Amino acid sequence: MSLKEQLFEKIDAKTERMIDIRRYLHEHPELSFEEEKTGQYIVDFYKDLPHDGIETNVGGMNGSVVTIQGGQAGPTIALRADFDALPIQEDTGLPFASKVDGVMHACGHDGHTAYLLILAESLIELKDQIKGTVKIVHQPAEEVSPGGAKTILESGLLDDVEAMFGIHVMTNAQTGIVQVRKGNVQTGRSNFSMTVRGKSGHGSSPHQANDAIVAAAAFVTNVQSMISRRIDPFDMAVFTIGNFDGTGQANVINDHVQLDGDVRTMSTQASETIMKYMHHFADGIREMYQVDVDLDFAYDYPVLHNDEGVTERVWKALEDMNVPGVELEESPKQAPSEDFAFYAEKIPATFFYVGCTPEGQEAFPHHHPKFFMDEQALTISVKAMATVVDEFVG
Amino acid sequence: MSLKEQLFEKIDAKTERMIDIRRYLHEHPELSFEEEKTGQYIVDFYKDLPHDGIETNVGGMNGSVVTIQGGQAGPTIALRADFDALPIQEDTGLPFASKVDGVMHACGHDGHTAYLLILAESLIELKDQIKGTVKIVHQPAEEVSPGGAKTILESGLLDDVEAMFGIHVMTNAQTGIVQVRKGNVQTGRSNFSMTVRGKSGHGSSPHQANDAIVAAAAFVTNVQSMISRRIDPFDMAVFTIGNFDGTGQANVINDHVQLDGDVRTMSTQASETIMKYMHHFADGIREMYQVDVDLDFAYDYPVLHNDEGVTERVWKALEDMNVPGVELEESPKQAPSEDFAFYAEKIPATFFYVGCTPEGQEAFPHHHPKFFMDEQALTISVKAMATVVDEFVG
Amino acid sequence: MSLKEQLFEKIDAKTERMIDIRRYLHEHPELSFEEEKTGQYIVDFYKDLPHDGIETNVGGMNGSVVTIQGGQAGPTIALRADFDALPIQEDTGLPFASKVDGVMHACGHDGHTAYLLILAESLIELKDQIKGTVKIVHQPAEEVSPGGAKTILESGLLDDVEAMFGIHVMTNAQTGIVQVRKGNVQTGRSNFSMTVRGKSGHGSSPHQANDAIVAAAAFVTNVQSMISRRIDPFDMAVFTIGNFDGTGQANVINDHVQLDGDVRTMSTQASETIMKYMHHFADGIREMYQVDVDLDFAYDYPVLHNDEGVTERVWKALEDMNVPGVELEESPKQAPSEDFAFYAEKIPATFFYVGCTPEGQEAFPHHHPKFFMDEQALTISVKAMATVVDEFVG
Amino acid sequence: MSLKEQLFEKIDAKTERMIDIRRYLHEHPELSFEEEKTGQYIVDFYKDLPHDGIETNVGGMNGSVVTIQGGQAGPTIALRADFDALPIQEDTGLPFASKVDGVMHACGHDGHTAYLLILAESLIELKDQIKGTVKIVHQPAEEVSPGGAKTILESGLLDDVEAMFGIHVMTNAQTGIVQVRKGNVQTGRSNFSMTVRGKSGHGSSPHQANDAIVAAAAFVTNVQSMISRRIDPFDMAVFTIGNFDGTGQANVINDHVQLDGDVRTMSTQASETIMKYMHHFADGIREMYQVDVDLDFAYDYPVLHNDEGVTERVWKALEDMNVPGVELEESPKQAPSEDFAFYAEKIPATFFYVGCTPEGQEAFPHHHPKFFMDEQALTISVKAMATVVDEFVG
Repeated sequence: MSLKEQLFEKIDAKTERMIDIRRYLHEHPELSFEEEKTGQYIVDFYKDLPHDGIETNVGGMNGSVVTIQGGQAGPTIALRADFDALPIQEDTGLPFASKVDGVMHACGHDGHTAYLLILAESLIELKDQIKGTVKIVHQPAEEVSPGGAKTILESGLLDDVEAMFGIHVMTNAQTGIVQVRKGNVQTGRSNFSMTVRGKSGHGSSPHQANDAIVAAAAFVTNVQSMISRRIDPFDMAVFTIGNFDGTGQANVINDHVQLDGDVRTMSTQASETIMKYMHHFADGIREMYQVDVDLDFAYDYPVLHNDEGVTERVWKALEDMNVPGVELEESPKQAPSEDFAFYAEKIPATFFYVGCTPEGQEAFPHHHPKFFMDEQALTISVKAMATVVDEFVG
Repeated sequence: MSLKEQLFEKIDAKTERMIDIRRYLHEHPELSFEEEKTGQYIVDFYKDLPHDGIETNVGGMNGSVVTIQGGQAGPTIALRADFDALPIQEDTGLPFASKVDGVMHACGHDGHTAYLLILAESLIELKDQIKGTVKIVHQPAEEVSPGGAKTILESGLLDDVEAMFGIHVMTNAQTGIVQVRKGNVQTGRSNFSMTVRGKSGHGSSPHQANDAIVAAAAFVTNVQSMISRRIDPFDMAVFTIGNFDGTGQANVINDHVQLDGDVRTMSTQASETIMKYMHHFADGIREMYQVDVDLDFAYDYPVLHNDEGVTERVWKALEDMNVPGVELEESPKQAPSEDFAFYAEKIPATFFYVGCTPEGQEAFPHHHPKFFMDEQALTISVKAMATVVDEFVG
Repeated sequence: MSLKEQLFEKIDAKTERMIDIRRYLHEHPELSFEEEKTGQYIVDFYKDLPHDGIETNVGGMNGSVVTIQGGQAGPTIALRADFDALPIQEDTGLPFASKVDGVMHACGHDGHTAYLLILAESLIELKDQIKGTVKIVHQPAEEVSPGGAKTILESGLLDDVEAMFGIHVMTNAQTGIVQVRKGNVQTGRSNFSMTVRGKSGHGSSPHQANDAIVAAAAFVTNVQSMISRRIDPFDMAVFTIGNFDGTGQANVINDHVQLDGDVRTMSTQASETIMKYMHHFADGIREMYQVDVDLDFAYDYPVLHNDEGVTERVWKALEDMNVPGVELEESPKQAPSEDFAFYAEKIPATFFYVGCTPEGQEAFPHHHPKFFMDEQALTISVKAMATVVDEFVG
Repeated sequence: MSLKEQLFEKIDAKTERMIDIRRYLHEHPELSFEEEKTGQYIVDFYKDLPHDGIETNVGGMNGSVVTIQGGQAGPTIALRADFDALPIQEDTGLPFASKVDGVMHACGHDGHTAYLLILAESLIELKDQIKGTVKIVHQPAEEVSPGGAKTILESGLLDDVEAMFGIHVMTNAQTGIVQVRKGNVQTGRSNFSMTVRGKSGHGSSPHQANDAIVAAAAFVTNVQSMISRRIDPFDMAVFTIGNFDGTGQANVINDHVQLDGDVRTMSTQASETIMKYMHHFADGIREMYQVDVDLDFAYDYPVLHNDEGVTERVWKALEDMNVPGVELEESPKQAPSEDFAFYAEKIPATFFYVGCTPEGQEAFPHHHPKFFMDEQALTISVKAMATVVDEFVG
């Protein structure tokens, strides 16, 4: 019996426990950077298991990395699940709904953690048959930039990892669908904050003042051409100014506007073009309107790039996954960003997607108070990841 | 002895009392529409004087109109002073500074009222020699649109007035200067409020949302040409957007922007052009950006127009005013608006200016916490107005 | 021996003739809609061949459709080559360079026609073994909108065609590369012409005129947001205004601007969004600037869509093409438009690409006076298309 | 009998000859810088007159300066008339219409010259009674920048002049009206030429090109705020871009736009603000759009400023001019520019206006093919200027 078949057997036996874990986590969500109890819960899970080392509170945060040393020589791979929740008031009416006011697992990280704990336990039990090493990464703080991934990478614990994998459940795909895509798959993100400062004055005497609203509005109007004329049409970039704070009195010339926004791109080239032109436009506004312009522009998450070679192997393994009702398809490109992208910058990696909306049921988006994850998706996730493990160290 | 000479004698005798009145009012400022005690103070002043009728609480507000019936036949004229104060915390350090926290006579209305009370008393004392009728208008609520002038006009009390006069003290002219200008002398004002409504959405998916910030910024950018291309270059119009409230989250497409602003013009034609084009620009933004645009545009104060004939007579009378140290000059056009303009729409009128900054002293603008009025200006004001009265009913 | 093997044998024997045909055509290029002699050359080629019917001058233009009725039952397919040239002065120095001044086959249509004539002859010779029908489409006027494809479709001659195929040689791929892509592969195109009319006047009196330059510039500035905010970031659209004719005298307000531009899109949805918003922006400019705006917006070529099922079969057949030195790869999306797109709207089709730049040689783009096509690419083209024919009717 | 009375007598006797001169000049118009025959005609006029010196071809141009040395001591004043015509095809049907195709005295310079010749002759005849010196300035090339005034000033011939005067006839005032205004009375003018250079490219690939049309349109859109926000609302400035040459092919990204325009101002401050901000906006566009921007901005004519003291004296003298049917009024500010402004920069001067449209007759504007000057205006002009001369040296 192959490693995969044995893993599937173990998983089948542990499914009920996996659901219990998920529901417990769902009832006890914690916000990014504050997931102490969840972090401890994870550590406790491994207490009596014969793993080969656990690093806790990695980088001073709440995450852990567990090493499973296989009985035979082979490569080192890593599996990652995130475990932070969101500042959202749950509105699902589920019996196991969040017990914490205003905090909710509305993105499925409870499920990610539950399936990975069960998979880790199964791998520990079968570790003699593993040809290589598996590192289990329980990562905190995925939702809030700069995210937990960076800190874990900086710990050095993944320096010897040769391939890395992660799953995200997806409400916009039905339960049963597994989605994989080679190359760039989730956008990179940048954020900016810009202050435009002119000079206040009476509304009837513009020549004695310097109108920051006119200058900032000109920035918004002109900068649209950065997207329309500077980005390769076959590439993509989105530039959103979500905050234009030029609040003031109707008849007083406003001396100050605050702009905040974010940028999504699907390539390094597009990111760099935006970075460069943001400064050109800021400089241009400064010149034209003789205002002070302070621009803070920062890269946030890189583009999430699935390694071609590794992902080819993942695709082929999942084609032969052999779980009834599971279908493999190419993932569309995804607009949101994901801090798994930091791992994928350093380590050949595949991040893939498991549909979690039951057939015929309305899908609420991630981060919605009615976000719903079909628990059947956890069974698919754990078996899909088991299949991947088997491909690389089986 | 002419009426003027007799008035001057009386005024000289009452100067100290005028200053006391002014200081009392300065210590007890009241905001527009709330000037109950000041209104009562004024009414009390007339209690024992042999005037020919006083209407109090005109139009339900705090103002009064006092009639002085001259001993001889002649025209009816009116003199107006305003008496409301401003929501400003006084910072002059004067011994008679405001005793009311956050409220201050920072525009000189205390002085206007003091000089007019003294002049009215003098006129009552000399009324046998008056050839016509003088109506004394104590007007509340000049500072806040729609102002008190409208209400007083609507009372009908001024329907028989053939010429009307008012004075404003001016910190940007030295004590001793009297300024008169024929024709349009202070701007008219309009105000607008505009709401731009799009559709919210995730910052990475602009095509599924409708960005109100981009639309509102485009309004600001495009509307500049209303001033540069639609207004006669020898006329004037100022269009200020003082509030651009597009506050929101950086990465969420904003569905709502609130704009507020005001407009100054020096001619009816310019006012009407602005009114018309504001709607054109609002309609254009609605079309181009497919947003909802609600525009409230309202005329506020008309242009203040000094009647050519009446003002010619005022000018000539003041040329012969014959008070040492007083100089007459043409007033520049004034950017601020003034609700005396409502009277001047209906009644041939002259509104003129009396410098109130002592020579060599720094002038703080009106509405400034350190606004300072040289009390010598009150003597000049009362004598200048006495001179005008003499010209018309002397 | 399979049909493919027999076709390859025939092709090998005819290669020299194919090159001669190509060179003859290259020396005698004709512009779109004027390709009479080329059209006749093609008809003459078929004169003595036992085909099953030829329609000439299809739709009153210079193209032909030749029917080859196979000996056995099966589907009807069509193969298309274009044969018009470009208004370019050749600058290659080739011994068989264009003999027509200012006209050149600078896009490879001479090669397309040469390979298809040879393939057609070979198919006619082997027609007993064909399981179905093959229609050979010699199409004129590909380079100039509305193109010849539309007319041929309207003739009804292709009404019974179940699958259709075409090849374009590609200078930006090396000889030996064959590129295929499922789905949308070349952009659709629209064009527009816009006239903005204001009112002329002296440069010093803008209020008596209506400045068409300010209005047209505002259109250009505002419309950038159509790309940045209305198009799905994972889709694409390009909007170029290549002509802004607001020529006039420096000190006279210009009453007239002419704008011309084109639009590229990769989806019907993007095309329709652009069409819709172009009208919104035109309407908005009309409102805001009170100018007359005439907008002519016309779809030109649709997006070229390769049918998923048919293209899957083409891909698999070409994977087994078995010609030394030939490599199959996924085609990138192509920015230019192609009127083969009209066929592909109606008939499941695959349009694919054959590299034509010899290894190590500089590639000049299509439509360049030094455009160069490696004739080895013709051998690859004819065998690749023979392979496709074998897959569908072999 | 005063100098004025004697001058009036002489003028009355010479009126018919003045009309003849005017008509002769009207029949023989010459363009700016090419007025050789007219210049000679003027010189010939003085040939036999006992003046005190004539400088001809001043500064290498066609103008002359005639000195009349009075019999008594007194100041030196100068009187100026211009004598160039316009490139306009006359369409008046007058018996003495232009005999030169496409050239016309459509601005009244023929009349200016006629009245000044007759006045000069009269002054020469009465020179014993003149208390001072009168210089008669016959200036060429008023219509075309940089104009003849500059050259005459540079000659040094006017270095000793203490006051200078000129008249322009005015079709928008009735015959009989004389208009004078103190201070700034005609606009100054600047001109600019701006080239925006980007990079050409295929319309479907904006990211590989740099679109000069988008950049130049952004300049036009943004620069409107220079007028709306930088100029004192009680001052004026007009900024017109009359030429936007971005002609090109619809589907090729345009690499080059040429802009030309002019600027009118009524104050040095406004001129300088425009000059400064034009460079700020050019710099801003360069930054934002990364294009090359060449800006040529040049002052052309200064604001025409009538000296307060001199003009006060002119006003008072004209009030007592005592010619039946002549009325004095304040001139409105005039939008056109006039190179008399160069004299007025250096020499205290008054430039004033004489209505020339007969009562009840339609007025065609200056520079119109039907421009018509009532010859009665010449009699008024010569007597008005005689009155001024009498005031200063009578």
